[in-house]
Amino acid sequence: MAHLFRTQGRKIIAIGRNFAEHAKELNNAVPTEPFFFLKPTTSYVDNGGKIEIPQGVVAHFEVELGAVIGKTGRDIPASDAMSYVAGYALAIDMTARNMQDKVKKAGLPWSAAKGFDSFTPISSFLPPSEIKDPHNVRLWLKTNGKTRQDGNTKDMIFQLPRLIEHVSSIMTVEEGDLILTGTPSGVGPTEPGDELTAGLETVEEGGKQGRVLAE
Amino acid sequence: MAHLFRTQGRKIIAIGRNFAEHAKELNNAVPTEPFFFLKPTTSYVDNGGKIEIPQGVVAHFEVELGAVIGKTGRDIPASDAMSYVAGYALAIDMTARNMQDKVKKAGLPWSAAKGFDSFTPISSFLPPSEIKDPHNVRLWLKTNGKTRQDGNTKDMIFQLPRLIEHVSSIMTVEEGDLILTGTPSGVGPTEPGDELTAGLETVEEGGKQGRVLAE
Ligand SMILES: [Mg+2]
Ligand SMILES: [Mg+2]
Ligand SMILES: [Mg+2]
Repeated sequence: MAHLFRTQGRKIIAIGRNFAEHAKELNNAVPTEPFFFLKPTTSYVDNGGKIEIPQGVVAHFEVELGAVIGKTGRDIPASDAMSYVAGYALAIDMTARNMQDKVKKAGLPWSAAKGFDSFTPISSFLPPSEIKDPHNVRLWLKTNGKTRQDGNTKDMIFQLPRLIEHVSSIMTVEEGDLILTGTPSGVGPTEPGDELTAGLETVEEGGKQGRVLAE
Repeated sequence: MAHLFRTQGRKIIAIGRNFAEHAKELNNAVPTEPFFFLKPTTSYVDNGGKIEIPQGVVAHFEVELGAVIGKTGRDIPASDAMSYVAGYALAIDMTARNMQDKVKKAGLPWSAAKGFDSFTPISSFLPPSEIKDPHNVRLWLKTNGKTRQDGNTKDMIFQLPRLIEHVSSIMTVEEGDLILTGTPSGVGPTEPGDELTAGLETVEEGGKQGRVLAE
């Protein structure tokens, strides 16, 4: 049922600061080991849906590659981790940045700032046959047609095997769980009425193969 | 399926610092509005099961009353909130306190410190006929037979209707979700090999009615 992760999955595990340029743009230290937070599956919204920005919230977009887990595991070694990946999805990790700034200062949890309804726009399931190398994928995001983020997963600080090893050393991963692998630089605010488009492109040897997944 | 929350539920929403004496014992400010964090359902362990304490973790117990959600809702007004409660459960919100202290200082998420496998010991489902007043329930916890926590839900800062109103103003609650309502004072460390017992007792007019739910 991994391809049904959108309705059947139980958790979203989102990695923070996994691109050095993004860590720096928010004046955060570049991490020496991975860290993550949980988002509720009630935050999913399908392609074409509406992102609701609550009153008083400064909502930032963060385009990310998601990896869908295909089977239950814990204490998974990095060497075996890719066998737990059933497929991928393109996601936007929407963030109430003003709330997050406040709770970071107060030492409080991130769950509310990251967990509003509609704060995880998500594409359809992409089988691994479509993304042969998850560490060479172009990720981009535009607001009202203007490019805001344009990165490549080759710049992840910690690659997927290490992320799965880390997460599963703390909590069991299950079929349908989604791991968000972090966002490249360029994050910023979006206003009600803006149109967000995002895409991922696999990069083949000798050139680019464009593939727009969400618009 | 609310009575099957243990296997069917999708999220655990845990309220922080909802008892003034507990906030003070950890040198935290008493909150002026509720806050919460998410725990993964993979952290559940049934009554009689083993709490695994990872190497290097100082694990604290926090006995709490859990409310099981019975139907989907968002933006639920406090006045209608109790109609969303299908039943209750006794829980222990295990916490890697040394990790939590560290992430609080660094402004990082609580998800790992709260989310280890087996960090949410849980009783069976208790129908509301068994707990007529969730705001007059004695909660206790013993380690190796010695009482460590002994409180009453009448001392909650924010009662269940307000908690459900707050949580559902941020994220949709669904059937089988569990809301942990916070712990009374007395939290402390537990070592591998300790036996934890916990219970809740409904308090009837004119006396106590003992009811041990987990041992
Ligand atoms: Mg482990
Ligand atoms: Mg992110
Ligand atoms: Mg607690």
